[in-house]
Parts: sequence; structure tokens; C-alpha cells
Amino acid sequence: MSVLVVGSTALDSIKTPKAENPRLLGGSASHAAVAASFFSPVKMIGIVGKDFPKRYLDLYRKHKIDISGLQIAEGKTFHWSGEYEANMNNRRTLSTELGVFENFTPHLPEGHKNSRFVLLANIAPSLQHHVLDQIKKPKFVIADTMDLWLNIALSDLLTLLKRVDAFVLNDSEARQLTDEENVLKALKKIHRLGPTYVIIKRGEYGSILSGPSGLFIAPAFPLERVVDPTGAGDSFVGGLLGYLAAASGPIEKNLRRAIIHGSATASFCCESFGLTRTSRVTSADIKNRVAQLEKMVRF
Amino acid sequence: MSVLVVGSTALDSIKTPKAENPRLLGGSASHAAVAASFFSPVKMIGIVGKDFPKRYLDLYRKHKIDISGLQIAEGKTFHWSGEYEANMNNRRTLSTELGVFENFTPHLPEGHKNSRFVLLANIAPSLQHHVLDQIKKPKFVIADTMDLWLNIALSDLLTLLKRVDAFVLNDSEARQLTDEENVLKALKKIHRLGPTYVIIKRGEYGSILSGPSGLFIAPAFPLERVVDPTGAGDSFVGGLLGYLAAASGPIEKNLRRAIIHGSATASFCCESFGLTRTSRVTSADIKNRVAQLEKMVRF
Repeated sequence: MSVLVVGSTALDSIKTPKAENPRLLGGSASHAAVAASFFSPVKMIGIVGKDFPKRYLDLYRKHKIDISGLQIAEGKTFHWSGEYEANMNNRRTLSTELGVFENFTPHLPEGHKNSRFVLLANIAPSLQHHVLDQIKKPKFVIADTMDLWLNIALSDLLTLLKRVDAFVLNDSEARQLTDEENVLKALKKIHRLGPTYVIIKRGEYGSILSGPSGLFIAPAFPLERVVDPTGAGDSFVGGLLGYLAAASGPIEKNLRRAIIHGSATASFCCESFGLTRTSRVTSADIKNRVAQLEKMVRF
Repeated sequence: MSVLVVGSTALDSIKTPKAENPRLLGGSASHAAVAASFFSPVKMIGIVGKDFPKRYLDLYRKHKIDISGLQIAEGKTFHWSGEYEANMNNRRTLSTELGVFENFTPHLPEGHKNSRFVLLANIAPSLQHHVLDQIKKPKFVIADTMDLWLNIALSDLLTLLKRVDAFVLNDSEARQLTDEENVLKALKKIHRLGPTYVIIKRGEYGSILSGPSGLFIAPAFPLERVVDPTGAGDSFVGGLLGYLAAASGPIEKNLRRAIIHGSATASFCCESFGLTRTSRVTSADIKNRVAQLEKMVRF
């Protein structure tokens, strides 16, 4: 089944201790859509400006991503610029130019409204709501977020959480949202906000899923060289939902393997800037890392 | 088969944001020996002062720990005092009074010298060497350490690493020892220092083993309430070696399950101050947590 992805479509200028890369293809929707495309057909919703390079539209097309819901508007594409510290875990935003995103209202083409698997990738919760409003009968909705929305759009986010099946956030966001240092207590509090499934991302330590059949502790694929982790969380959730939409049988049965596939997909994202590495990945590459992960956790 | 444990035997005064507990039974050897005792007979080497409470000797005896190698010397027992921050991960030492440890020379009773499984728990590397010198034909030697020895006894530690089969350290110590932020690079560098097996402890995120059959990513048992993590690392390695000494078949085959048993044992240590919880644990309790961990990582 196909996956509908809404999120940001951006140009990212990324600085690490070792290199600097201007105007890469970025944004949560770009990373998530490409990651999902390895498993399922993908429809993407977003907005870019007239300055958006044609080669990036070609990249979406190469991954057979349906961009009929991508608006190309007068003005400049959303541009984010950030810098990573030596440990590649801490990053700071240098600048954010919203551009065409400032007046974005996501409109779903008619055919998109029947989507069953919906990924509300990181974007303002009001826009996530707006997309969800247009979907007729979703089967599984997963939402991601970021600290910014906890700070400036918390009430929108809280109402959104009552409408989604699964919520993905990272550990520091979970602490911020729940005021709990302990991950189990945080998970419980987040369940009470609505989602049946909660997934807390822990960077290089993997992730933890909490749902009706208990906890699942998932590893991250260990990498010897992390070049640029931007978009890894988006790739993770994209790969996860892409796998889930393609798998047969109940969600509950497939979710753990979906997380592992998300984890494997995200690992490629970290190995080069932007989508450079991910866009050259094959299904066989992902399967290979999933098989390696299986060996690494077996006892 | 029995396990020989050498390490510190101490009184710990521990302060957390919620409580303060003076003069608890502590020290790396105490934690490791009790943890190992759930799986194998244990012989413990250490030193305490005349002030060492009889109830703590009784606790060792309750766990059938052979304390014929525990010296009881004129003077005061080693006393450590520390404080944890709210997240229970960061701690600082308030005071260290070496007491009888200042002049400790470990002497092995004759029967101890035939020990096959040797745990060099955290203690000065020169003392770890001294114990190893007295062992006739060890089968598997595992060493633990702490940042202090990296700072003040690095050359002793480096020669020790050439004599051990396995080396256990935590992630910050691994970074300090190798000057590598990346865990895979750090593991490779540590292998080059000698040990066939390297285990990096990552606190609540579990641990990672590197050895001839690749990597093993092991979870920590998730806890809703961490009361006092002091000694968890010692319990981990104690449980690990206790399990290994009791298991039949090659080390390589048993090591992953040994780590999981160490992890389960260590989780109890965190649930109360000092050895309060661990000393009330049963083998069935540990098996139960191992079974839960199996469910939590399966996919």
C-alpha cells in the first residue's frame, strides 16, 4: 500500500567539524519520503520555491515519489543552516529562513485523500492537523515532531496526539514533554496523551517502542563514520512506515521489524551529507544491514 | 566452576536527590561477588578494617562467598562518599578515605591459586597484576577499571590489558582511553591493546561486546525507578562471569547470554541502596528478567 508523507521540504546548509555543504536537499518530508520509497510507493505533500533546483525534483522522481502534491510557489525554498559539534550528537541552528513555508497550506490532491498509511513528518502541528483533516479513512497515522513545536505550538501538538496511532520523538523531547528523566515513566505519560504506540529515538543507542505488547528495545546500526546525522530521524520513521505499509498482517505483528528496517535505512542517511548516500541505497543494502542487526542482537 | 573475585571492599555513603545512606556495604568486589554468587561458587579477595560490621561478613556468608582470602586488618575500612545528580547518571565523589587499602597486598590462599575464572574488579591495576601473578592456570580473565586508573596508573593498566581475555569499561572511559568519540573505532583501538573481548558499558542503554564473532548489542533491563546505581557495573561483570563459569561449552558460545545475565543482575542493584536489593534476589528473579529481556529484543 502507498504511504502519504507530509513534512518540510528544504535546502539545508550543514557544517560539521570536517566539512561544509551548502543548499543540500533536506527537510523532514524529503528524508522520510526517500526512506519510505525503498518499501512502498510514496506520495509527498510539501512546498518549495521557484529557486528549488530541478535536480532535486529529479531525485524525488528517481525514487518514484508522487510529487503531484508538492506545491511550487513564488518565493524562496525553506532554508535551514546548522552546525554539528565534534561528537556529532549536538547541533545548533545557525539560521532558519522560512521562505514559502511561511504561507503554506497543504492541499491534498483528490487521490491522496484515500491514503491509509500517513506519516506526519516533522512540521508545525497545525499543518499536521490540516493534512489529517483531509484524509478520509486512515489505517495507521504516525507523527514525528521537534523541540520547537513543544516550545511554541504545544496545544496543537497535544490535540494532534489524540488523533494519531503512533508518536515518534527523541529522548530529549520526551523529557521536555513529560518532565520525566526516566524513559519508562515518560512513555507512560505520553501514552496517556493519546497514542497507542510511542517510539522514543535515542540516537546512536537506537530506539524504544512501547505498545500493547510491551516494550521493544531496538538497536541503531553501529557506524564507524558518522558524516552528517541530519535527517536520520526522518529516514527512520520513513523507512518504518514504508515497511509497515508493504507488510501483510496486523500492525502489531510487523511493527518491530518495521522499526529495524527504519533503523537500517537511517544508518545510510548518516554516512554522507543530506540525501547523498540514502539516494544511492538499494533494497539489498537495507536487507543486508537488517540481517547484520539480527546477528548483533541475537543471544 | 568457581569464580575468583578481587576488588575493593568498602563502606559507601551515598547521597541521591531523594535520600542519604551512610556506611552501606560497597566496593567493586562486594557487588561483583554477590552478583556472581547467583550462578557459581565465589572466592573473594580483599581487605577490610576492624571497624567492618559483622553483618556485612554475614551477608557474604549468606551468599556462600568464600572469604578466607579477605584480610581483616588493623585500621579503618575503605570509605567512599558520593553524590548523584537528579538524572542518576552523573555522580561526584565527596570523599575517599583509603584506610587499610593504603597498604593492601593481596595474598591468595593456596586453594585460590587454581582458580580458572578470574574477575579483576575495579581496583588499582598493580593489585590486579599482583593477583594474576599468583594464579597458576587461568582459563578466562576479565578486568574492569575506572577513570581514576586511566589518570594515575595508565602504564600499569596497559600492561594488564596484555594479560586479560576480556576488558570491561564504560563509554566515557573508552573515550578517555582511546581519544575516540566513535564506539566502533574505540573498540578497535582497545582490541589492539590486548583483550580478545571488549565490553563497553553504556549505562541505561546497555552494553556492546566486540569479539571474534563480531558485535553484540545488549540491552539494559529498563527500570522505572533507579534508586542508586552504585555498583551496577560491578554487578554486571560479576553476574556475567558467574554465569560464564557455570555454563558448559566454549566461552564464545556463552558470552552473549552471560552478558544478558549480567545485565539482569545489575538491574536489581539499581533498585535500592548498596546491596540491599541484590542480596534479596533469587535465581528465579534473574531468570524472569532475562526472559523479559529476550521478549524485549526479539523481532
